[in-house]
Amino acid sequence: MADEKNDRFLRACRRQPVDTVPVWIMRQAGRYLPSYREVRKHVTFLELCRTPELAARVTLMPVEQLGVDAAILFSDILIPVEPMGIGLVFTDAGPSLDGAIRNRGDVDRLRVPTPEEDMPFVLQAVRLLRRELEGKVPLIGFAGAPLTLAAYMTEGGGSTHFTQLKRLLFADPAAAHALLDKITDTVAAYLAAQVAAGAEAVQLFDSWAGVLSPAHFDEFALPYVQRVVAAVRQAGEVPFIYFVNGIAGLLGRLRGCGADVIGFDWRVDIGEVRARLGDGVAVQGNLDPCVLLGPEALIDHEVERVLAAAGTAPGHIFNLGHGILPETPPEHARRLVEAVHRLGRRAAGQGGDGECGGQRA
Amino acid sequence: MADEKNDRFLRACRRQPVDTVPVWIMRQAGRYLPSYREVRKHVTFLELCRTPELAARVTLMPVEQLGVDAAILFSDILIPVEPMGIGLVFTDAGPSLDGAIRNRGDVDRLRVPTPEEDMPFVLQAVRLLRRELEGKVPLIGFAGAPLTLAAYMTEGGGSTHFTQLKRLLFADPAAAHALLDKITDTVAAYLAAQVAAGAEAVQLFDSWAGVLSPAHFDEFALPYVQRVVAAVRQAGEVPFIYFVNGIAGLLGRLRGCGADVIGFDWRVDIGEVRARLGDGVAVQGNLDPCVLLGPEALIDHEVERVLAAAGTAPGHIFNLGHGILPETPPEHARRLVEAVHRLGRRAAGQGGDGECGGQRA
Repeated sequence: MADEKNDRFLRACRRQPVDTVPVWIMRQAGRYLPSYREVRKHVTFLELCRTPELAARVTLMPVEQLGVDAAILFSDILIPVEPMGIGLVFTDAGPSLDGAIRNRGDVDRLRVPTPEEDMPFVLQAVRLLRRELEGKVPLIGFAGAPLTLAAYMTEGGGSTHFTQLKRLLFADPAAAHALLDKITDTVAAYLAAQVAAGAEAVQLFDSWAGVLSPAHFDEFALPYVQRVVAAVRQAGEVPFIYFVNGIAGLLGRLRGCGADVIGFDWRVDIGEVRARLGDGVAVQGNLDPCVLLGPEALIDHEVERVLAAAGTAPGHIFNLGHGILPETPPEHARRLVEAVHRLGRRAAGQGGDGECGGQRA
Repeated sequence: MADEKNDRFLRACRRQPVDTVPVWIMRQAGRYLPSYREVRKHVTFLELCRTPELAARVTLMPVEQLGVDAAILFSDILIPVEPMGIGLVFTDAGPSLDGAIRNRGDVDRLRVPTPEEDMPFVLQAVRLLRRELEGKVPLIGFAGAPLTLAAYMTEGGGSTHFTQLKRLLFADPAAAHALLDKITDTVAAYLAAQVAAGAEAVQLFDSWAGVLSPAHFDEFALPYVQRVVAAVRQAGEVPFIYFVNGIAGLLGRLRGCGADVIGFDWRVDIGEVRARLGDGVAVQGNLDPCVLLGPEALIDHEVERVLAAAGTAPGHIFNLGHGILPETPPEHARRLVEAVHRLGRRAAGQGGDGECGGQRA
C-alpha cells in the first residue's frame, strides 16, 4: 500500500523532491464533467453540498477520471454564512445572499457557528472521503478567506466594483473589523474541524483580496489570514495553502503570511512570484483556465511555459490560476494532467536531490 | 495669458518640476455630475459623442466645476468600431456590439476607417475645445488600446472571463494578429488625427490588458501598443499616456513601451511602480475610485497616502486608478482635486528644483 500511495502533492507542499510535478485543478469536481451534471439533475447545488455521500461521490470523480494528485472536498466557500445567520441560495447567475451586511447592527446580529453542530455534513463528507480514498491521493479541505466572505456578505453576491464592501471598509472601519473578526473566528474553527475530521491539507480561498489596494490589503485582509493560519496550526500538522486571486500587486506583503503554499492567478509570472516570495514557501499555479479551451497542442505548449517559468526548485504544485471553466472539454482537463506529469518530470528531476528523480515514474 | 495658463499637467508628463501635483479624473465628465445628467436627458450617449458642441460642453464641465488640471475629450473608446464595420449600441448595462468577431473571415470583412471622413465629429470637438479652453488647461485626446478593442469586438460587450477573446488568441492566433493589426492601424490614425486637430496629449486605454498572462501580454498587447506610440510620435510632440488596468503583473515589460506616462489601477503600490519602471517615465494614478464614496476626512487621508507612496521625484499626475463611479457625490470629486492641490504642494516642492516650488501656489 505504501508504495502505491501518491504523495507528490504533500511532498511538493513541503518543498521536498518529487518524481514529477503534482497537479490538481480548482473546481475539478464541477460542471464541465458530464458525470457531475448527471448528479446535479437530481439535486440542487446546496443539496449536493449538504449530502455527504453525494459530495464524496462528486469529489472522487476527477481523481478517477483525470488522475489528479489531490482530491478537494466538494463544497462551497459560502457554506458557513448560513449558520452565521445569512440566508443563501444559488441560481444560475451565482450565489445570492439574504440580508446583506451594511452596518454595525447587522454585524452584531451574526453568530459564530460551531462546525460540528452547524455544518456536520461537511465533516461527515471529510471522514467518508478519507475512508473511500484509502490513501490513494491526499484530501484537501477549504474555506473562504475572511475578506472574500466579507465581500459576499456585504455585496449580497458577486460584484463588479465592490462598492458595498468598500463603503463598509472605508466609511465604518470599526464595523468592518468587527465583521472580519467574526468571520475569522468562524473560518478558523471550520478549517480546524476539517483537519480534525481528516483533511490532509487546507486551502484558504481569497478570491477578492485582489480588489483592494495593497495598503487596504494590509489593513483588512492579511491580519485575518494570519489569524486563520495560526488557528489551523494548532489543529494539526497539515500544509496550509493561501490562494490569492489578483496577487501581483501584493507579493511584497505575503512573505510573512505563514502559509506553506501560496496559490495565485495567471496574471503574474510564476517565476517572478517565486523570486519575490523566496524559497521558504511553495507555490501553486498558474495556467490561465482559458488555455483549456484551445487545442491540445496549445495545452502542452502552455504547460511547458509555466513549468519553465516556475523553474526546478522543489515546491511547485501545478494548478490553474482560477477555477476550471464549465465549457472546458473534459478531455482537455485530462490532457492537462497528463502533460504536467509528462513534462514536469524533467523539471522535478532537475530540482530534486535524486531521491525520487524520474526513476519511479 | 501665459501666466494664467495651467501647464502643471504637461510639465508633470515631461517630468519637470511643478508648483503642486496635477490631477484629473478618468470619466470626469460623466454620470456623477448633475449637469451631465441634464444634458443626457435630451440625447443618447452616442448622440452626445457625435455632436461636437455637446461633447465640448460636457468636456468643459469638470474643468469649470472641479478645477482639474486637464480636460479630456468626451467620447468613448468604442467610437472607431462602428466605421470598422461593427454595429454599436449603448444600454444601461453597457455597450453592445453587433456581429462579434469569431474567425479570420470576420476579421477580413473589417475596414480601417479614415478619421477625417468616418469620425469627423471627434476632430471637430477637439478643434472646438481648443478654442473654448483658450489655453486654460491642456486637452487630452484618447483611444482604446488594440487588445482592449479586440476584447470588445470578440466578446460583443463586457465580459467576466473573456473566453471569446481568448478562444481567438489561443485557437487561431493568426486571425487574432490580423485583427490586432487592423485595430492598430485604426487607432494609430485616429490618435494622430486627434493630435493634428489640436489634442495636447493622448491617452491609450488598455482596460483589459490585465486579463492576460504576462507572456500573452508580450505576444498580443505590447507590440501593438508600441506601434501606436511610434505612429503618434510621427504626428506631433505630445505626451503619450499608456493606461493599463491590472498593471501589477506587467511591470517588468513596460519599460520599453515608449510612452511618456504610465497610468494604472489602484491594486499596486505607486511607489513600487516607480521603482520598477525607473525614472525615465512619469506615472499617473492611482487612488481606488471607491475612496470617493467614503467621508471627506478619508479622502484627505488616502490622497496623502498615495502622494507619500509616489514620493517627491518629478513626474506624478494624480488620478483615480479607474473611472469615477456614477454614485460618487460631486462634492467628493471637488474635495479630491482640492486635497491633491493642497497636499501635493509639499510633495512637488520637495521633488522640484525650486523653479516652481510652492511660490506660485
